[in-house]
Amino acid sequence: MTDRSFKVALLGAGTVGSQVARILTEDAEELASRIGSRPELIGIAVRDTTAARDTTVDAALYTTDAEALIDAADVVIELTGGIEPARTRILRALSGGAAVVTGNKALLAKHGTELQRAADAAGVQLSYEAAVAGAIPILRPLRDSLAGDRITRVLGIMNGTTNFILDAMDSTGAQFDDALAEAQRLGYAEADPTADVEGHDAAAKAAIVASLAFHSEFTIDDVHCEGIREISADDVAAAQADGYVIKLLAVCELDGEGVNIRVHPTLIPRKHPLASVRDAYNAVFVESRDAGELMFYGPGAGGAPTASAVMGDFVTLSRRKVLGGPAIPDQSHRNLEATSLSRVVSRYTVGLHVKDKLGVLARIAQVFADHGISIQTMHQTKHPEHEAGEPETTIRIVTHRTTDERLEGTLAEISALPTVDRVTSIIRVEN
Amino acid sequence: MTDRSFKVALLGAGTVGSQVARILTEDAEELASRIGSRPELIGIAVRDTTAARDTTVDAALYTTDAEALIDAADVVIELTGGIEPARTRILRALSGGAAVVTGNKALLAKHGTELQRAADAAGVQLSYEAAVAGAIPILRPLRDSLAGDRITRVLGIMNGTTNFILDAMDSTGAQFDDALAEAQRLGYAEADPTADVEGHDAAAKAAIVASLAFHSEFTIDDVHCEGIREISADDVAAAQADGYVIKLLAVCELDGEGVNIRVHPTLIPRKHPLASVRDAYNAVFVESRDAGELMFYGPGAGGAPTASAVMGDFVTLSRRKVLGGPAIPDQSHRNLEATSLSRVVSRYTVGLHVKDKLGVLARIAQVFADHGISIQTMHQTKHPEHEAGEPETTIRIVTHRTTDERLEGTLAEISALPTVDRVTSIIRVEN
Repeated sequence: MTDRSFKVALLGAGTVGSQVARILTEDAEELASRIGSRPELIGIAVRDTTAARDTTVDAALYTTDAEALIDAADVVIELTGGIEPARTRILRALSGGAAVVTGNKALLAKHGTELQRAADAAGVQLSYEAAVAGAIPILRPLRDSLAGDRITRVLGIMNGTTNFILDAMDSTGAQFDDALAEAQRLGYAEADPTADVEGHDAAAKAAIVASLAFHSEFTIDDVHCEGIREISADDVAAAQADGYVIKLLAVCELDGEGVNIRVHPTLIPRKHPLASVRDAYNAVFVESRDAGELMFYGPGAGGAPTASAVMGDFVTLSRRKVLGGPAIPDQSHRNLEATSLSRVVSRYTVGLHVKDKLGVLARIAQVFADHGISIQTMHQTKHPEHEAGEPETTIRIVTHRTTDERLEGTLAEISALPTVDRVTSIIRVEN
Repeated sequence: MTDRSFKVALLGAGTVGSQVARILTEDAEELASRIGSRPELIGIAVRDTTAARDTTVDAALYTTDAEALIDAADVVIELTGGIEPARTRILRALSGGAAVVTGNKALLAKHGTELQRAADAAGVQLSYEAAVAGAIPILRPLRDSLAGDRITRVLGIMNGTTNFILDAMDSTGAQFDDALAEAQRLGYAEADPTADVEGHDAAAKAAIVASLAFHSEFTIDDVHCEGIREISADDVAAAQADGYVIKLLAVCELDGEGVNIRVHPTLIPRKHPLASVRDAYNAVFVESRDAGELMFYGPGAGGAPTASAVMGDFVTLSRRKVLGGPAIPDQSHRNLEATSLSRVVSRYTVGLHVKDKLGVLARIAQVFADHGISIQTMHQTKHPEHEAGEPETTIRIVTHRTTDERLEGTLAEISALPTVDRVTSIIRVEN
């Protein structure tokens, strides 16, 4: 279709990288016609060229000299992950005039501003759709499609592992540990699941999404983060009884003159579009002034789906490069500040284990009232006697809207009551 | 923020146009900073400047001289609808070097290729996200985000009026006429609902979506179109009993070396993500080789949501114009042909009214077998005796996969049987 070609360097040949290499090889003709110039894969940088490789790709393409590869490329696709050497290599590519596609969420959530500024200074394009929600096109709609609107809130299920675990707990009544073991057995969770179940992975994506949605610069350090380890089968059952489901949500919302960004388990009504996101799927729900409510749904991880997002960026950016158009610089200019979680107003469910004594419920209700928190519902469930012989009761309270700060003070006082054993759960509720 | 400005002409001041005028006026500062140059609204072309106008917009902006306005503009936003004079005006704008944003689906579905070629020839941008599914960003993801993937099928609920009617029938058991009257009362359906209920509106959108998804040129004449007028409360109840819901789907799918594009009522399983699209919402479900299954959901119509899509196009295209980048030409190059409906393989539900005589079911089953169509299920429901005194039965058949052509031949033979009163419904089933 065209005689011209341009040089592409691929860094990394893991789950996503090997899929990208396959598409670049197998679809060369189709890509050339869509871009208007032929992409020539000049090399794949790996740590060890003797390791087993995809046989569909020419073995001579593998190299350990990433720097030489980068310096020879027009477009660099970085799929190695981690902060270094990815950061140094991307900066080298950008300053050398190469456009860069990356799916490196950890790096972007930490050094996104530095990378974007380096791209702007060099007048080249940096694209990273694959860094958030795998194959789901969410960054481009936030940046371009909603560019003339005002986004007020983004709610996302941005981690497939935790959604799989919570969905399994919801549908089978399993405890967290059993659902995690099942996720590990099926390959949805890693042997060390910390980054997923503690919410760090979702927090990185939340920082990237908030930066684009609110035209500001946020890092993962701006994100308040709670995981799902403490969620019990009791919490899930209680949510079900009230018509809710528990999801690990990333929430990015306008908060006065700032933006509050947080990741935490959340009760959402079963009728909410996010409630029906099952298994390891991801979804991002966007609320804006004019568009109203939008939702984007799809596979949030996996080699081929993430490669699809990488290739979408690659074709779009290469096409622009071939046409000779200027890079589109960063639009972060509002520079809204991240706000503290203590300001956030929300409804909560609180679970308490208390001694089964007359008046304990009234005493607890009084502490909430003293702190100015209005209670919406209060349920008491009596348990069979303990081995110690003393009867025990679970109290579950749903509050009206209050601040995190106020709730914290309330629960500190309640925990100190002699009739209260412990606070078993605190989960936010979104409508 | 910037001293430079560029001139914007708005054609039309209806539901969407008035919202666009509001945003251009109220958000001038914010838009200037996002675009990098100040958009100056130089006029709003209307048929009659004396009609009641939005008081937030300077009355002096209204004019009946659309041509003079177009000739003075850098960007033209066309929101008048209909084929003429919209087509002539857009061609005038493009050939004069102005970029154009339009939400005119009827025009694009008929003359999209002509307009795109005129834009490419002039080296200017033509954008039309608002033409499909209102505020839902679907065209940009299809064109850019999935540019390195291979889309195999698109299923869309692309008309809010019919989704409202079908959802009402599903949740209340109402007949079509009552649900339509309710939709009209609530403003979801027009006094003359033909374009919506006959599927013409969805068919126009399907032609636009298929063109982008398959990088080819299709018009509304390539779309097979059936509406929802014939859907009865009985059909809805029978679907419910089998775990299905009836939706008016636009289906665009690869069919050998071509693309089949059609709009028709369809049974989809209740667990399918499209099944939970309620009220007047729209959703587009995309299947592709690498990304797998994606869904985009949101308001499919309305002044503000559609204006959000218009403004997204406007900011993106103006930004590129300000940066001095070239327009992105059309990527339609595969030129796949539209295929005939008779080739399409699908499952069907067929409803029949028959005389309640022994052996009628066996006779009908034999005709299906003679035509090589395998029956999955066959239900028989006996009715109270007719006034005429003759007992009657409803038979509902779900077939395995077969072609439209083969089913047509089968039903022609069955209709001619003396024991068969009539075929009451034929609805396709998607999984």
